[in-house]
Amino acid sequence: MQENPGVELISMGIGDVTLPLFPAVIDAMHSALDEMSRAETFRGYSPDQGYPFLQELIAENDYRSRGAAITPDEIFISDGAKSDCANIGDIFSPECTVAVCDPVYPVYVDSNAMSGRAGDFGADGRWSRLVYLPCTAENNFTPELPSKAADMIYLCYPNNPTGAAITFEALKKWVDYALEHDSVILYDSAYEAYISTPGVPHTIFEIPGAERCAIEFRSFSKTAGFTGTRCAYTVVPHALERSGQSLHELWRRRQSTKFNGVSYIVQRGAAAVYTPQGQAQKLETIGCYMKNAKNIRDMLEAAGIFCGGGTDSPYVWLKLPSGLDSWSAFDMLLCRGNVVTTPGAGFGSCGEGYIRLTAFGDPESSLIATERVAAILRGI
Amino acid sequence: MQENPGVELISMGIGDVTLPLFPAVIDAMHSALDEMSRAETFRGYSPDQGYPFLQELIAENDYRSRGAAITPDEIFISDGAKSDCANIGDIFSPECTVAVCDPVYPVYVDSNAMSGRAGDFGADGRWSRLVYLPCTAENNFTPELPSKAADMIYLCYPNNPTGAAITFEALKKWVDYALEHDSVILYDSAYEAYISTPGVPHTIFEIPGAERCAIEFRSFSKTAGFTGTRCAYTVVPHALERSGQSLHELWRRRQSTKFNGVSYIVQRGAAAVYTPQGQAQKLETIGCYMKNAKNIRDMLEAAGIFCGGGTDSPYVWLKLPSGLDSWSAFDMLLCRGNVVTTPGAGFGSCGEGYIRLTAFGDPESSLIATERVAAILRGI
Repeated sequence: MQENPGVELISMGIGDVTLPLFPAVIDAMHSALDEMSRAETFRGYSPDQGYPFLQELIAENDYRSRGAAITPDEIFISDGAKSDCANIGDIFSPECTVAVCDPVYPVYVDSNAMSGRAGDFGADGRWSRLVYLPCTAENNFTPELPSKAADMIYLCYPNNPTGAAITFEALKKWVDYALEHDSVILYDSAYEAYISTPGVPHTIFEIPGAERCAIEFRSFSKTAGFTGTRCAYTVVPHALERSGQSLHELWRRRQSTKFNGVSYIVQRGAAAVYTPQGQAQKLETIGCYMKNAKNIRDMLEAAGIFCGGGTDSPYVWLKLPSGLDSWSAFDMLLCRGNVVTTPGAGFGSCGEGYIRLTAFGDPESSLIATERVAAILRGI
Repeated sequence: MQENPGVELISMGIGDVTLPLFPAVIDAMHSALDEMSRAETFRGYSPDQGYPFLQELIAENDYRSRGAAITPDEIFISDGAKSDCANIGDIFSPECTVAVCDPVYPVYVDSNAMSGRAGDFGADGRWSRLVYLPCTAENNFTPELPSKAADMIYLCYPNNPTGAAITFEALKKWVDYALEHDSVILYDSAYEAYISTPGVPHTIFEIPGAERCAIEFRSFSKTAGFTGTRCAYTVVPHALERSGQSLHELWRRRQSTKFNGVSYIVQRGAAAVYTPQGQAQKLETIGCYMKNAKNIRDMLEAAGIFCGGGTDSPYVWLKLPSGLDSWSAFDMLLCRGNVVTTPGAGFGSCGEGYIRLTAFGDPESSLIATERVAAILRGI
């Protein structure tokens, strides 16, 4: 932009929402603010684990309605799934073996590197103690079970960055593996609201036995446009124990010592997502993003470009023509097409040869950008 | 309350505010919410370190105006001083020696116990690797310098729980000590707004050289009634280095990996605290609490009971008649006076023989409760 001040860039790079907060959420937050302005209805510290009114709505709508027997007190309201995914390491030993997908959301890797579980960083761009689970076009972006036993396994479905969803059967294999090997699955389900394919599980707790081997992270960020508002939750079932310790109790202690709850106003906004108006407005917003994703993917496939994602997730994972690496493609699309993308190699070595496009942008600009991407890649 | 359902308890125990958010804050948050309701003005992810509009107001009003050369980019906006005080351990080695006051805000101790810096918990109620700094009536609640070198020193002024403030000269001794011994002072200044005594420093960065040995934690919780709204900040100066590492860069990396910023709406609310209306409303609110604190302290002293705090802090630290321990006093005041207090022993062994009273309650109820406390203790 400094070199070409007249040029207008179109970003398909950042995973941030662009549509405003829903009217139902806005109304609820205005009301909550009014409550905070009067001594009779003012609220100080929230309960550490969140307000019961929100825990109950989550338990009913996101779990019980899907046959998952999660109770309100197993839900921890927080300021973000990123914080929770990173902080969860506090309740695991530094000796634990960690498995991550490749490509992967960098927070899982970096937070474990910071707490000493990753080992040394090698010249191949990999950490010596991490177990990597390649996710490639060949395995349909669903990793094989680890060859080496892992104590902590990070899974993210619908996946960031590949956009892939996981079937009930595939996820059941992971749950069975974890139960057999005493692993804990750290299941990041931040993009759950984008699932459209029937039979794809919306929560790991749809799988029998998951309550004994999984922690699930959820967020209002992508579900309800809360990236700048901040609300998420983490489910740690009472039945989850390791080495005779309740992980629920450990996380409760961690949160009550190192966290002071989420803004009352924000929790009221999150609760409004579950009203009939909120649910309708949520479907409408997500519908916009997903229509965008479908258009992007259709246009690329029509140009003969292989893509993952875009059906159960706002991300399209574009396979570059052979011989073209992620960063060269990034530079080419930026300089020739004025389009910002995310180079796949930034997510891990198996991301090399891919770029990630997001469907969070303005629909019209996104199609212009996608047309340019297709034209440039076809012309190589 | 179960045993005596008709009885009305008065709480002087919890350190939570009760007066509503200021009108200036409420107005700013309503406006910010309106911005979030329109695509043109909607905000997604906040900058990790906070919005510059808030960082600049803090740097100008809380630091430069007091002669402390803190720049906006040295300020990290967060969701709470508790989170920051606890998470700061992430950038220190598990080998570091930690010094804490006794009595002490339990978060400093517990977060270090969790990260392995505390050693073993002894029968005397003390952790084997912590260096304890007794704060008693004898030393006017200002600790002596540690006899054993400490890498991390937690100081909190105005103090929770003793309510004591620290003079410029006393704090300078700590800064000089830290500079000489390569210690880092973790300075919790959550109650800064309650300082009324002239000459008491409002920030550790008033002391020359503190930018090379201190991290400061501040919060809008007690300053602006944000306990249920959530906004705080931590200052890590660029000049602070240990073992050739910039602690600012380490904390920046920690926060950008494990935290996703504070709600835009909340940051706008915090910024409104610095408007002329916000400042006037803040003084008024704090004036109410401090008038309450003065009344509580005056009434107790008139009854011949020795108290600390209550002049530069919302806490009154009451010395019990000799022979009466904290928990017995707690039980007695609860059962005979229907008053909830906080037993000093809960803050550490040097808190034994004290109870903490807070001035955050309704003024009328607080005086009724204090009268009962005085009558019961006088009657022993």
